[in-house]
Amino acid sequence: MAGPSHAPLQTRRQLLGRIGTLAGSAALYQAMTSMGHAMGTDFSGPPNLSGAKPGTSVLVLGAGLAGMLSAYELRKAGYDVQVLEFQTRSGGRNISLRGGDTVAELGGATQKVGFAAGNYLNPGPWRIPYHHQALLHYCREFGVQLEPFIELNHNSWLHSTGFFGGKVVRYRELAADFTGFTAELLAKAVDQHKLDDLVSADEVAYLKNAMRGWGALTPDLQYTKGTLSSLRRGFEKPQGGGPDGAPVPSELMNRDEIWKSGMWNWMAFHERLDMQTTMFQPVGGMDSIGKAFARQLPGLIHLNCKVTAIHQDNSGVSVTYNDMGHSGAVRHARADYCVCTIPLSILSQLDVQVSDGMKAAIAAVPYGSSVKLGLEFKRRFWEEDDKIYGGISFTNQPISQVSYPSHGIFSKGPAVLLGGYMFGPAAYDFAGMTPQERLEKGIKQGLAFHPQYRKEFLNGVSYAWSRTPWTLGCCALWSEEARKTHYQALCAVDQRVVLAGEHASYVGCWQEGAVLSALDAVTRLHKRALGAA
Amino acid sequence: MAGPSHAPLQTRRQLLGRIGTLAGSAALYQAMTSMGHAMGTDFSGPPNLSGAKPGTSVLVLGAGLAGMLSAYELRKAGYDVQVLEFQTRSGGRNISLRGGDTVAELGGATQKVGFAAGNYLNPGPWRIPYHHQALLHYCREFGVQLEPFIELNHNSWLHSTGFFGGKVVRYRELAADFTGFTAELLAKAVDQHKLDDLVSADEVAYLKNAMRGWGALTPDLQYTKGTLSSLRRGFEKPQGGGPDGAPVPSELMNRDEIWKSGMWNWMAFHERLDMQTTMFQPVGGMDSIGKAFARQLPGLIHLNCKVTAIHQDNSGVSVTYNDMGHSGAVRHARADYCVCTIPLSILSQLDVQVSDGMKAAIAAVPYGSSVKLGLEFKRRFWEEDDKIYGGISFTNQPISQVSYPSHGIFSKGPAVLLGGYMFGPAAYDFAGMTPQERLEKGIKQGLAFHPQYRKEFLNGVSYAWSRTPWTLGCCALWSEEARKTHYQALCAVDQRVVLAGEHASYVGCWQEGAVLSALDAVTRLHKRALGAA
Repeated sequence: MAGPSHAPLQTRRQLLGRIGTLAGSAALYQAMTSMGHAMGTDFSGPPNLSGAKPGTSVLVLGAGLAGMLSAYELRKAGYDVQVLEFQTRSGGRNISLRGGDTVAELGGATQKVGFAAGNYLNPGPWRIPYHHQALLHYCREFGVQLEPFIELNHNSWLHSTGFFGGKVVRYRELAADFTGFTAELLAKAVDQHKLDDLVSADEVAYLKNAMRGWGALTPDLQYTKGTLSSLRRGFEKPQGGGPDGAPVPSELMNRDEIWKSGMWNWMAFHERLDMQTTMFQPVGGMDSIGKAFARQLPGLIHLNCKVTAIHQDNSGVSVTYNDMGHSGAVRHARADYCVCTIPLSILSQLDVQVSDGMKAAIAAVPYGSSVKLGLEFKRRFWEEDDKIYGGISFTNQPISQVSYPSHGIFSKGPAVLLGGYMFGPAAYDFAGMTPQERLEKGIKQGLAFHPQYRKEFLNGVSYAWSRTPWTLGCCALWSEEARKTHYQALCAVDQRVVLAGEHASYVGCWQEGAVLSALDAVTRLHKRALGAA
Repeated sequence: MAGPSHAPLQTRRQLLGRIGTLAGSAALYQAMTSMGHAMGTDFSGPPNLSGAKPGTSVLVLGAGLAGMLSAYELRKAGYDVQVLEFQTRSGGRNISLRGGDTVAELGGATQKVGFAAGNYLNPGPWRIPYHHQALLHYCREFGVQLEPFIELNHNSWLHSTGFFGGKVVRYRELAADFTGFTAELLAKAVDQHKLDDLVSADEVAYLKNAMRGWGALTPDLQYTKGTLSSLRRGFEKPQGGGPDGAPVPSELMNRDEIWKSGMWNWMAFHERLDMQTTMFQPVGGMDSIGKAFARQLPGLIHLNCKVTAIHQDNSGVSVTYNDMGHSGAVRHARADYCVCTIPLSILSQLDVQVSDGMKAAIAAVPYGSSVKLGLEFKRRFWEEDDKIYGGISFTNQPISQVSYPSHGIFSKGPAVLLGGYMFGPAAYDFAGMTPQERLEKGIKQGLAFHPQYRKEFLNGVSYAWSRTPWTLGCCALWSEEARKTHYQALCAVDQRVVLAGEHASYVGCWQEGAVLSALDAVTRLHKRALGAA
């Protein structure tokens, strides 16, 4: 349990310094945690890369967040750095789509984005948890403006085709009734001394009281239709002003359908560390981050470079690439060291001269498929008609969710919502359709929430990560088994080459993983360059 | 359970129109609710006041939100409207305090606010729930820019002096462990067939599964230290990048202390209809709303008018007031009708010519006391050190809570937090202190959360509503008994006088109550003026 000590700040810092010196970083970590300092992901500040030998060169492959941050920190430390990037843009999976953009995918389909000015979809990362401290640190350092991303919305819709007559319910209704019925059952079990083997006599009274208060139970431990429950789930006739202002309580949902529907999964979802409040998004689109990172590296990023081989010997690393801006001309680059951030799905197809262990690791990790739909509508009917401001509506249909923009709330004019976010099998199904079919499917399923869809629809775009030529998937999906067998080999500095990216972290599929991996990789590469490791 | 039908919009509107015509407003309400339209407070759009007789005059007493909105709607309908206001400013309890402002309270204490430019405290209302649709409607109509107010923050602190060694815990730690232990106990009770009288055989399997998923239990229904629980409550050593990136699970809290501490009250708090996400605040301070309302009434609001008597006869209403801008000169105003929004705490002391029933009602409702502390610090240490971005830390100490600004997150320079929000007995205690003592007490208690308080403190201000001369309290506290006996008499149009304000609503102590009450009052006064009621 983390909590700050009450010692003065300077004394604490001195103490931490002493612990760090005496006992190594594990003890320091332990001490910091118990003082409430360390939390969230494992970030303790920018790396210390002092003492770099002048003239030492590093080739960075890939200009996503991991590549650009590696280049930034290494160059700051005094290394000569160059970045080779396959795409015609930097940023990697950090993307925002806007009106006029083109999405070309494997299989030949090309979409032109039709959004109105100012509107966007983040097809890759789209939210930043509070504990992604490394990413937040660099956002601040590079001047990326952030705003709250509304993840949990008590007024959003939940929908499951087989339950509650297929009708939508409000999140607050489900949450209140789930909580109330759970509390009622446990309170009664305890009250009737059925759990005396598990709960001490001393604990019983407090537990009952907790269930009553938390579950909005009546004094006799019932969860029933009435003011208490409606002050959680909402009233049938809400509270008003004047003589007719008295509210009318609302009906409860069926208890057994609540468990059976599985809708409680969406309550649990918001309690996951990665989905907790407060979350953030960059103002204007996620690619504000990629652009800010790129601004730190003027002249160092070379676009259109399709790497085909990475070789190394005792004196350096040689990279072969096709210069796609010049008819694919074969070129070579050489440096003392290399940070390779190319996704494993691509890297596994290249000629890479590393240890057998690292090769096996590179080949061992499958990439997930995901598809996102961005739908633009004439107006914010979810706000104006449904009173939903940001947050997510969930369904058991393949689209899985509809997420409403956290920015521009209450504004007029066209707006874009996330009309579907598929992962796993549903993502493969959607990736197999034409872009037009995907939109049509997304609209049809979204009608469960919003009958306004057909009337208000303007245009849309879909983004299928499995059809994206430079990643062939959205991110590395480590199994526990693969992690055990291959993770250390993947992360090790292999002579003069080190890999970085979300795939080389325990924060997979998040930008934070890419950033933390990069910081870790350059720290170890630096030690290697100094001959210390 | 509210949910939209899937009928096309126009058909639904036609249907609603028919229901309204045939069956009256109650049936309409029912129908709208079941279609997912009506929700939150009882607002169905601006009032229809058509047919006002030209030249009919209305005197509005009080330029808070209720008074200003009454004046706005009546004037729009064609009435001649004047507003008398006691203070030297309009807005009523809708206030923001900024550097240079003066707070003078009963008892003689005067404070000069020392905040840096751009910083503010909202001593009265400070947040707007998503379902306060009437207030939100007028914010949009009058161009008030709103931004998200972060109410729930999984990373904020909870503190109870008698539990967990008096140390703070993170909200996420308590929420995860409360949920986990609750789920574990209920799952086991069901698994051991101890609730077979309450839960059918068919329901058991689904209930167990729900507890397992919702409570992050192991397959054998245990809530234990491990990855499952730490993915909710946070890890001891968080997930990282590279070879050392594996996380280390965190210890659980003591189960019995969780119930005993009462900390679960703060989980329940966020599930209350009034505290659910999404919430809003006006950009730049709550008084943006009062100012926007006042802008709609150019030349109609007369400040410095201290009303002393309200009389009425068959032809009109006479109001006597002291013109405080002219040495308190006694003046009279007369109109056909009067909307009086003066708080009952003040109105009960005036010479008011209304029915005995209304007089008794005016005298029957006590006003609550509350005190807020605004503390300005050199920097946002709660963000920089503690990773708390908006939201509220709760304590069982008298200050009750510390709330962090939802605006300006990640910015540099001095910032103001709400260092205490007392209600009830604690508010009287704090109101009895000097402003300096209040700040000292607030700082001392706040140290439980933030040892940085002393070092970073710049200045502060306190606002004691019971010492505010024009309200003598923060809002009307209706008991159920008083509501039964007096509410209808308070709200009735009394000949030519009608009362409005949060006190004449079921949304007490909220701006929404003032707005809904005003809309209702002017609607009924209009009918009276037309001879229809």
